[in-house]
Amino acid sequence: MSTDVWGKNRRNPKMSEVIARELANHIVNAKLAEGSVLPTEKEMIESFDVGRSTIREALRLLEVRNVITLRPGPGGGPVVRRPLPEDLGEALTLILQFEDASLEDVMEARRALEPTIARLAATRISDADLDAMEASIGIILEDPKPEVFQEQNQVFHSTLSKAAHSVVLQVFLSSLGSIADGIAGGVTYSSRRYVAAAHAHARIVEALRVGDGSLAERMMREHLDEAYRYWHKKHRYLVSRPVVWRR
Amino acid sequence: MSTDVWGKNRRNPKMSEVIARELANHIVNAKLAEGSVLPTEKEMIESFDVGRSTIREALRLLEVRNVITLRPGPGGGPVVRRPLPEDLGEALTLILQFEDASLEDVMEARRALEPTIARLAATRISDADLDAMEASIGIILEDPKPEVFQEQNQVFHSTLSKAAHSVVLQVFLSSLGSIADGIAGGVTYSSRRYVAAAHAHARIVEALRVGDGSLAERMMREHLDEAYRYWHKKHRYLVSRPVVWRR
Repeated sequence: MSTDVWGKNRRNPKMSEVIARELANHIVNAKLAEGSVLPTEKEMIESFDVGRSTIREALRLLEVRNVITLRPGPGGGPVVRRPLPEDLGEALTLILQFEDASLEDVMEARRALEPTIARLAATRISDADLDAMEASIGIILEDPKPEVFQEQNQVFHSTLSKAAHSVVLQVFLSSLGSIADGIAGGVTYSSRRYVAAAHAHARIVEALRVGDGSLAERMMREHLDEAYRYWHKKHRYLVSRPVVWRR
Repeated sequence: MSTDVWGKNRRNPKMSEVIARELANHIVNAKLAEGSVLPTEKEMIESFDVGRSTIREALRLLEVRNVITLRPGPGGGPVVRRPLPEDLGEALTLILQFEDASLEDVMEARRALEPTIARLAATRISDADLDAMEASIGIILEDPKPEVFQEQNQVFHSTLSKAAHSVVLQVFLSSLGSIADGIAGGVTYSSRRYVAAAHAHARIVEALRVGDGSLAERMMREHLDEAYRYWHKKHRYLVSRPVVWRR
């Protein structure tokens, strides 16, 4: 990939790679839904006029990238799937493990991304999304238990993340979320902390309601900084935990 | 992966996945260098006490994630490789293609990330890195040609990105760089624009020299905003170009 950075020195792609790319483009351009059945291996051999092993390699390339699934057995074959934002988490986790990254690094990146997301969302978010975020706050305050908080906290942050309409930042944040939860997902807090978090969420929603991007950014930063300070004080051992690939 | 988000509902991993994870952990913990030869398939069958197909699946899992390469032929076998930050670009590109993202989305994410990187770098960067960045500016000013700029611009931004010592942000930014270059790598500008960019770089270095994080952040933001405005004015067709997976 590195020789590719300036668009030069691009090596000649293998035929299987060319075919994999064509199939991916076809799925996107024809807007094929998840579960759509693609032509069989045999049909592809004929239409691309290449050997079986080339088609198999192309399909395998797409399978490991979550673009298709290969149903086994007779009558089986390639079926459309979509590579999901969550899929990035796995590739990222492996790289981070090799780079000796810790939960601290993941938290630092989140603190860089999510305030910007809050700022962008201020002018882009719908009333329905704001209502959904407000509802999640109400549910936490009514019953500040770990399971309730974890679920509603997820609703709050993922609704906001989608509302920023910045697909790249959303994908990045979602991959960080799955890594952080993998490391520290089981940790619980006192109900007092869940209530405090809900109030921080409410201040963010207020800023979004009036469309004040810089206020929303600042409120999100304060919310994350507060969580960061707490973790450093109470869960230092977790913060330095390494990122480890799981599957 | 999505059932994994809260650390519950984790499905039972397949034996090949367990072995793949153990091998990855071993490579990291034993600090095996790139090119190190791993035990042969036959030795792994014995030491893990599983069948050939399970070991093959585990090795294949690691190969597609760039953790090993499989040398073909007799005397061949698994050899250590490292998953590189650049590898994330490919996974991200595919997701973005399915999400109908454009170069505009990639640029927006870069404008969110790189000012933060400049702020973090202000207190972490070494004199040697600052000297390298300054040297890259001098080379551009001396000979403001496209090839010179592209190379030295890359030196400037990647030196800064590493100097922030935030491995996650560095990985994210590098994946955005490879996507943007893939779309717009061939575009060239007038030498006047290269000189202006070099001066913007110089203002960032000045802020970093005095350790002023918020100034460095602001200078980087202005630099990127300026580029963004220019692109919108002069290369609108490029900005809306879709992200397309290439291999």
